[in-house]
Formats: sequence, structure tokens, C-alpha cells
Amino acid sequence: MQNSVDSIGIVETKYFSFNEKIKLENGLEFGPVTIAYETYGELNETKDNAILVLHALSGDAHAAGYYSSDDKKPGWWDGMIGPGKAFDTNKYFVICQNFLGGCKGTTGPSSINPETNKPYGLDFPVITVEDMVQVQKKLIDYLGVKKLLNVAGGSLGGMQAFEWAILYPELVESAVIIASTTRLSAQNIAFNEVGRNAIVSDPNWNNGDYYNGELPARGLALARMVGHITYLSEESMHNKFGRRLQDKTKVDFSFDVNFQVESYLRYQGKAFVDRFDANSYLFITKAMDYFDLHQKYGSLAYAFKESKSKFLFITFSTDWLFPPSELKDAARILMSLGKEATYCNIDAPFGHDSFLLELNHQTKIVQNFLKGVR
Amino acid sequence: MQNSVDSIGIVETKYFSFNEKIKLENGLEFGPVTIAYETYGELNETKDNAILVLHALSGDAHAAGYYSSDDKKPGWWDGMIGPGKAFDTNKYFVICQNFLGGCKGTTGPSSINPETNKPYGLDFPVITVEDMVQVQKKLIDYLGVKKLLNVAGGSLGGMQAFEWAILYPELVESAVIIASTTRLSAQNIAFNEVGRNAIVSDPNWNNGDYYNGELPARGLALARMVGHITYLSEESMHNKFGRRLQDKTKVDFSFDVNFQVESYLRYQGKAFVDRFDANSYLFITKAMDYFDLHQKYGSLAYAFKESKSKFLFITFSTDWLFPPSELKDAARILMSLGKEATYCNIDAPFGHDSFLLELNHQTKIVQNFLKGVR
Repeated sequence: MQNSVDSIGIVETKYFSFNEKIKLENGLEFGPVTIAYETYGELNETKDNAILVLHALSGDAHAAGYYSSDDKKPGWWDGMIGPGKAFDTNKYFVICQNFLGGCKGTTGPSSINPETNKPYGLDFPVITVEDMVQVQKKLIDYLGVKKLLNVAGGSLGGMQAFEWAILYPELVESAVIIASTTRLSAQNIAFNEVGRNAIVSDPNWNNGDYYNGELPARGLALARMVGHITYLSEESMHNKFGRRLQDKTKVDFSFDVNFQVESYLRYQGKAFVDRFDANSYLFITKAMDYFDLHQKYGSLAYAFKESKSKFLFITFSTDWLFPPSELKDAARILMSLGKEATYCNIDAPFGHDSFLLELNHQTKIVQNFLKGVR
Repeated sequence: MQNSVDSIGIVETKYFSFNEKIKLENGLEFGPVTIAYETYGELNETKDNAILVLHALSGDAHAAGYYSSDDKKPGWWDGMIGPGKAFDTNKYFVICQNFLGGCKGTTGPSSINPETNKPYGLDFPVITVEDMVQVQKKLIDYLGVKKLLNVAGGSLGGMQAFEWAILYPELVESAVIIASTTRLSAQNIAFNEVGRNAIVSDPNWNNGDYYNGELPARGLALARMVGHITYLSEESMHNKFGRRLQDKTKVDFSFDVNFQVESYLRYQGKAFVDRFDANSYLFITKAMDYFDLHQKYGSLAYAFKESKSKFLFITFSTDWLFPPSELKDAARILMSLGKEATYCNIDAPFGHDSFLLELNHQTKIVQNFLKGVR
């Protein structure tokens, strides 16, 4: 499914810190903040060829390339970012950062609170998507970017792209919003609530204060297992696993792993514990729950009123977590306001994860859209 | 949504026990068994007007009527069973029982193992839907029933109805199978595995030996929360809760309940703990996972070869847990074998739970189907 163009090669994660406090949506002041970020390609002389790529719940700043020649896996959107790819690093200066509240180098609940010299844990403030974007703006200024040719992201990444286009209309020329929504649905809140409950029900969670002890591994693994089911479609689970048995020729009438899908989920749950912080999971899902452009701005029409962006919306036919209708509605409202919006629903079997897996159509659509931006 | 015909009135749960051992699908012998059951209406002289109603995962023998005049809620399918209702107790002798492995009066993992005088816990055998049906057959014989005019059930109840029609072709004249499947999908197995993992991850579960101590309440509540999301549709969650806040005028930037849907799920989880056994949840979901008529009989065509039943299949447009296509396929195969099968997909917004909630169309369709059975 990946296109055949080469990867960008070896990359490194960089860090930018600022000491001044920012005012959060909840009214609190917060700082200092460190941001982990990567860049691919070169910023041009007029400093207006930058594209900010925004990651989803479990992503990080490492969107493309490899850390070393031994590295087995490239960044999470390597198929989309690189020379000749959708976000063409021969033309564009692509930036990706880990968002506020994360656990991949940017300040989050596992970071040291300078006031206590201990990890924040639950003392970390409850943040919003707008807060994430506000922090990202500091990085964009620091990098000397004058115009964002594009902001792009899938899922929670798309929510950040929405806020960018709304909050910084003079800066953002276009937005690519994929498999996302203008407000989180009741069903999504429900799944997030289950994940959070799994974490806080783990005795090792210890009210968020676990960094010197046992991790809430079972709770976090459970949250991830639930998440994984929602990222796939029924069709893709059927194609990938069906009812095939794991290392067995018949069911063994036990509670051990019998089916491949059980084995897959248990593995995904365990693997996640090694790479993600349980408190970050709580804070990020809460930021998603709170995302509601309709309520925040009075209506979608009000939200988009000042935006000068061209919008490209991409959805996937089997994405039941973020159904296509949401972005289709956003496109309709933008068009009725006389703004430029393109909507495309791609027929792909991979469910919500299609934005990470279905790259051929996405590549062509994004390439042609970006050509028309300036 | 309930039709206006009166309830059957006051009913009581009865018990039937047998001492002989039955041979389970896993090869083990098991017994004695006690079955909790209820009956509504009268068995006729020719003992051939019986209808066996089969419950789903969390159901019980109390399908209709009230236990006392103070009882606030009737049985789980009261809208469908009673005088003049879909399963008309003026005409039919309706039987409902709690299945093997349950925790509502029939022998299950919380029952006392006569060999140890302690609850079975994990010593309870891993059972299948066929094993449940085999036990039900003992009750049918005990009640003197000569013909089952119909076997009926939704979800796991429908799976039992399938096995009845296949295993006892001479006894079963018709089957009403609603919101069910001929084999559990990978997505369903995945959700079941999450629920089981939630339970066994609760330290109170204690390898299934918790009956004299603290219950694995958090694990079981979590399993139920996940289940509840899957029983509803995105549409019904949107209509029921949307993004409405619980006892608040704005979000409070905390991890307390903010949204109504969070409050609902937490309540459903907690309430379930008071009425259900965690080990039963493990064993019943395992029986569901193992359900696969294709694999068991070689193919669906082989499975149905000897069946003499007329089949009525009902599905619901928004049931994403048991998508309509599965029963549509079953109907097609039965028709191609020259058997009588009727398939109806009802446009209802309630998701999988429609079989408990959408009663008007179900009533008319079932009534007319039953008229044509004999």
C-alpha cells in the first residue's frame, strides 16, 4: 500500500523550550514547555513553504524517516512525507511535533513539574485541542515560519488542523483534515470513558502517581485493546483474522488464546504499555472529548467565519469511529459560506486506521490539492 | 414502543434438576444440573403448542410478567410475550429458562460443585451453545412437550435457536432468529476478549475464586461498559445523550463525569455488578466465541440439511454488532436448499438492542409468521 518513492532517510528529533507561561482554555497559566519536533525538507527564503503535520492520539514527532540505518520502522506517516510523496519534501518544509500532554518528548503529565521536582501526574492541567495548537504556534514562530502553506492531520490531528485554521486565519493557507470530526460523538466519548476507566481501575495507577513504582500496565493495555477494535473495521478484522486459530488446529476449551484476533489484541495492548504513558492517555482523550467547534464558536458557520484556508476533507467508507458524514457536513457549511472546500470519501476497507494505511489515493488527492493552494 | 396489550401478570420462577451427567462438546461429562425456568400460557392436550424463548448474554428465565404487584419492571421480553402479543399466551405455551453457565438459578460457575462443596469457579467446564441446548432439551422433555411450535431468540438466543433447529429437526417446527449470526465475527470475539481481560485483570477476580471475598466489581463493570456501547448504535447514542452535560452548564476541566453518556455507562457498569456473576460472563462469552455453524457442520448447507424448521430471520438496520448480512446469507442458503425461510431487515435506530426495544414491527412480523407455521 505504500508508494514506492524512497524515504527521507535518517532524521533526528529536536527540542525547543519556552519559559513564559501560556494561558490555557481552562483559565490556568502553564509553563515552561518543551516541544519535541522534527522537520523534513528546507524552509524557503520567503519562509512560506511550511506544512505542519499533526499527529493523532498515540503518535509522536517522528512522522517520517528513520532514526538510524538499523531502524526497522520509519515514522508514522512515512508513506505520505518525503521526496515526491504527498507532502513533498523537495518542495515543502514539513514540521511534525509531539503535542502538549503527550509523552514523546513534549511536556506532559510524565514530565517533571518544576514546582515539585516530581512528575506532574494528575497535577498536570486538563488541556484542550486549542491549548495544543497554542503551544504549536510558539514552535512555528521559533522556526521563523511566516505562512503555513498547509496544516494536515488525521483523527485528533484533524481536530488540531481545524483549530489552526480557525485561530490563525492569516497564517494558515490550507488544511487537510482526514478521518476526523468537528465535535466528538457520544459513541467516541463512551469509548474514551471506557479506556480511562480501565486505567484508573488498575490499582497500580495510584491516582496518577506511579512513576516510581509499578506501571498501570493492565489498565493501559485494556484501554489500547478497546481502541484498536475501534480503529479497524469489521471487514478488515474479518480479512485480517477471521476466525482463524492461533497456533492450534482446533479450539481447546480453555481461556488461553484460541483465536488470532485475541493474540493480536493482547500483543497490541502489551506493546503499547512499553511506549505510552497512562496519564497522557487520560489527558489526551479528555482533550478529544472536549472538542466541539459547534458549541465553542456558537455554530460551525461562526467557527469558520474568519478562516481564509482552503480545506480538503478526506473520509473513509469503513470508518465507523469518525463517520464520513461529519466532514461532509463541514464541507457543505464552508461552501455555503463561499469558502473553498473539497470533500472526498475514499472506499477503503481498513476502518479509521485507513488514514495511516490507504496511501495511494490519499497521496494523489493531497498532491493535487496542494498544487492548487497557491 | 411497547404495544398496549396487558402484561401476563404475576409469574414465578420454577426449578427442575436432573442428576444424570450429560456429555459436553468438550468431551467431559457434567452434572447434576438445575434449571431455572418460567412458563406462560397453557400446554394444550396434544402438547404441541410450546414455544421456547431463548435469552441473550445477560438475560434470565424471567422473560415476561412481574414477580409481585410491587415489581417495577416486567421480564426482559414482556412486550413480546403475553395475551395477544407476538408470542400469544392465549394460544401458546411459552417457556423461558436460564441457560447452562448462567447465574440466574441455572447451574453455572457460581453454583456449588457437589464434589468440593465450594462454588465451581474455574472448575466449571468450558461449555458451548450446543451444551446449553442439550440441557434445555431435558427441560422440554420434563415438561412433556411433544413439539416445539417455535424456538425464538435474539443475539445469543438466536444462536441457541439455530442449534435447536439443527440438532432436533423432528421436534422443532419453526425458528425465529433475531439480530444474530451463524458464526461469531472477529470483531465480536475481540470485544468479548476485552471484556474477559477486564475481569481477569481485576485483582479481586483471584483466578475465579472470589465468592467468599470482594467481587471483581471494577472488571465486570468495565466489561459491561464496553458491551453497552456495542449494543447501541452511534445514532441512538447521539439521540439519547449527544454531547449533553450531566448536572453541569459547562465542562469543568476535570476527570469527574462531564457528559451524560459517561454517567450512563458508569451507572450501567455498577448496576450490572449487583446482578451478574463475573465468571458467568467469562464462560458465556467463550461459548459465543466458539459458535460457528460453518466450521462445526462443514458448511451452512450441511448444517441445515436435516432441519425441518421454517425460519424467520429479523435483523436491524443499525445493528453493527450483528450486521444484517449474516442472517440474510443464512436465509439465502436455506432457500437454495428448498427450505422455508423469511428474512426481514427492520429500519430501527437502536442498534443491536433493537430486538429488545423495537417491538411493533417485530410483533406483527412474528405473529404472521407463527400463523403460517402449522
